Amino acid sequence: MRDVSIIGVGITKFGELWDKSLRELGLETGLAAINDAGITSNDIDALYIGNMAAGSTLQQEHVSALIADYCGLANQNIPATRVEAASASGGLAIRQAYMAIAGGFIDVAVVGGAEKMTDVSDSESSYTVSMGSDEQWEAKAGATFTSLHAIIAQNHMLEYGTTREQLSSVAAKNHYHASLNPMAQFPFALDPAAVSKSGMVSTPLRMLDCAPNSDGAAAVVLCASDKAKKFTDKPIKIIGSGQASDTLSLHHRKYLHRLPAINIAAKKAFEDSNKKPEDLDLIEVHDNFTISEIIALEEIGIFKRGEAAQKSLEGETKLGGIIPTNTSGGLKARGHAPGATGIAQIIELVKQLRGEAGDRQVKNAKLALAENHGGTAATAVVHILEAE
Amino acid sequence: MRDVSIIGVGITKFGELWDKSLRELGLETGLAAINDAGITSNDIDALYIGNMAAGSTLQQEHVSALIADYCGLANQNIPATRVEAASASGGLAIRQAYMAIAGGFIDVAVVGGAEKMTDVSDSESSYTVSMGSDEQWEAKAGATFTSLHAIIAQNHMLEYGTTREQLSSVAAKNHYHASLNPMAQFPFALDPAAVSKSGMVSTPLRMLDCAPNSDGAAAVVLCASDKAKKFTDKPIKIIGSGQASDTLSLHHRKYLHRLPAINIAAKKAFEDSNKKPEDLDLIEVHDNFTISEIIALEEIGIFKRGEAAQKSLEGETKLGGIIPTNTSGGLKARGHAPGATGIAQIIELVKQLRGEAGDRQVKNAKLALAENHGGTAATAVVHILEAE
Repeated sequence: MRDVSIIGVGITKFGELWDKSLRELGLETGLAAINDAGITSNDIDALYIGNMAAGSTLQQEHVSALIADYCGLANQNIPATRVEAASASGGLAIRQAYMAIAGGFIDVAVVGGAEKMTDVSDSESSYTVSMGSDEQWEAKAGATFTSLHAIIAQNHMLEYGTTREQLSSVAAKNHYHASLNPMAQFPFALDPAAVSKSGMVSTPLRMLDCAPNSDGAAAVVLCASDKAKKFTDKPIKIIGSGQASDTLSLHHRKYLHRLPAINIAAKKAFEDSNKKPEDLDLIEVHDNFTISEIIALEEIGIFKRGEAAQKSLEGETKLGGIIPTNTSGGLKARGHAPGATGIAQIIELVKQLRGEAGDRQVKNAKLALAENHGGTAATAVVHILEAE
Repeated sequence: MRDVSIIGVGITKFGELWDKSLRELGLETGLAAINDAGITSNDIDALYIGNMAAGSTLQQEHVSALIADYCGLANQNIPATRVEAASASGGLAIRQAYMAIAGGFIDVAVVGGAEKMTDVSDSESSYTVSMGSDEQWEAKAGATFTSLHAIIAQNHMLEYGTTREQLSSVAAKNHYHASLNPMAQFPFALDPAAVSKSGMVSTPLRMLDCAPNSDGAAAVVLCASDKAKKFTDKPIKIIGSGQASDTLSLHHRKYLHRLPAINIAAKKAFEDSNKKPEDLDLIEVHDNFTISEIIALEEIGIFKRGEAAQKSLEGETKLGGIIPTNTSGGLKARGHAPGATGIAQIIELVKQLRGEAGDRQVKNAKLALAENHGGTAATAVVHILEAE
């Protein structure tokens, strides 16, 4: 198998982008990524698209062909493939492109993720998120996506004594990071006390424990490493890639305080790369809720089980701490556009590993990990990146 | 790259399966395929799912995790990936699994396709099909999926003089084949005159020119060829795989009487396999409308442009003709369940190449091709299979 590098990135600000359609978001980030990579459209062998919900939000399936068409790539008839795994769609699209290049089928792929969540009615958008859980046994029975994570949070509290203050520290830390990221949806700091006092959504999760439903898009250009230097002097290598599944519905799980698919996907990525959690300089994890970041830190092996929440409260996941986590602001404060989120995580890591992260730069960042999951982590995808 | 073989197949009858849910269809065909392959669930490294529209028809995205969960595969945490490209979702899922095995990432994958089209309201189901075309510039403007193909049919008639009788011969031939296939949705012969007299849907396409919207599922087991003999004594090798895109919307096309993505995907598959159209013993093509079969025969290179319709009228695509086409009955008469269709095509070819096709067996079938497309062929996927 061949090595694969990331040679270009492009991202929109996430938020309520009511003046931009899905296809416009796709075009904007695709162009930015190929400009950043220094390639032309003729260099592109394939397009991969991560998108969760265009079928129900926009009555548009076949989004891969839509984006290829609107970007002018359909004129050269390149293969265009959409991958969907709820909020893990973006990470999974990167993994498909990575395998196609590593396996020798193609040299250069553009991987884009795009989602429109806010120009549909609020009720629909809320239901849209639930489509990542089990419709028949969870959503239809009245379990909202937040309430499913509330069950997980309650069980984590029961098992380890996780506290309100610890959860609030996660959201506050991610907002602090976002205040240093001009591309974040919510680029302002937030007092942990404000999180603790925000409205209750589903006990114990409050409004400011929850990531937003955003519009947004992100794109990266992947290239066989032996050809990457032709285009860029700052390629970032993908040295590990792991994917795992878990039951879609929580009632089939053995534990409710764990998200094992993250653990298994991370183990595979560490095996690929011959690295260990303690080797990492920074990580991006899937904080769709504050509790998810805590559990992800434990499943990846950054902290022992039951210790991540306290480490977060102590500032160890903040810039300057042991392991800066979600320097982009995370899903909570950079924003969460399901199909784009997994790609936005990778873009933050690329910027950090290039030394281009501005005020939020992690010093001497060489090795980084991204963890992206869908539903209640029924799909998890982990990538490890290294500066070359 | 390693060779890849198909070692097991499973399929439901297509039709109005009101007593079976999507997950039940997935389980039924998955079990049938692994039983046919002689493997156990422990042998499975990954699951790939083709599904077009569960988001809008069932309010359920994340179908890969759903099927993994319901089949018990989530307990072993294998990667489960959903691929979507409208009616090409099934063929594209096979291609992703093929690349993952050929590239050396995994040894054994189950690829399933499933779709529920008939337990949603008729109006929704009709709109569902349109989601494979351009919602903004076609569907929302009132162009139904049939009317888009009617434009293509009109242009083919204008360019080549294609006639009503020629189109009718395609549907009648596929129904004749289906009368020999106990698993077909419409297992009965049809007089071409009945096609010509059926109700007009969109000039020139009549009701019996159109494939149905079916419920159904299909699954295959793919395995690295060097390990296939461990499980089966009748592996069928995938010797070519091609994929191409075209503009999603017809108004961006140069020609309206052609579907070039099919041509490009087929060329790639012929290059892979070092075979020519005249080497083929039989083919399955994507006859969502009669005109599509005619054009597919021309794009693949079976007949010269403008000649396929007459060859069809002369019986050359029927069992016993030069190139038996859609011996399963095709989308028209075996049925068309979008996510499952591309996999159902492959299953028909595997049965033929194994010599297990019963009354519709093509004598001495050794080499076969499947062509599956989405929308108005904005995505096309072609595979070539050979008996080992």
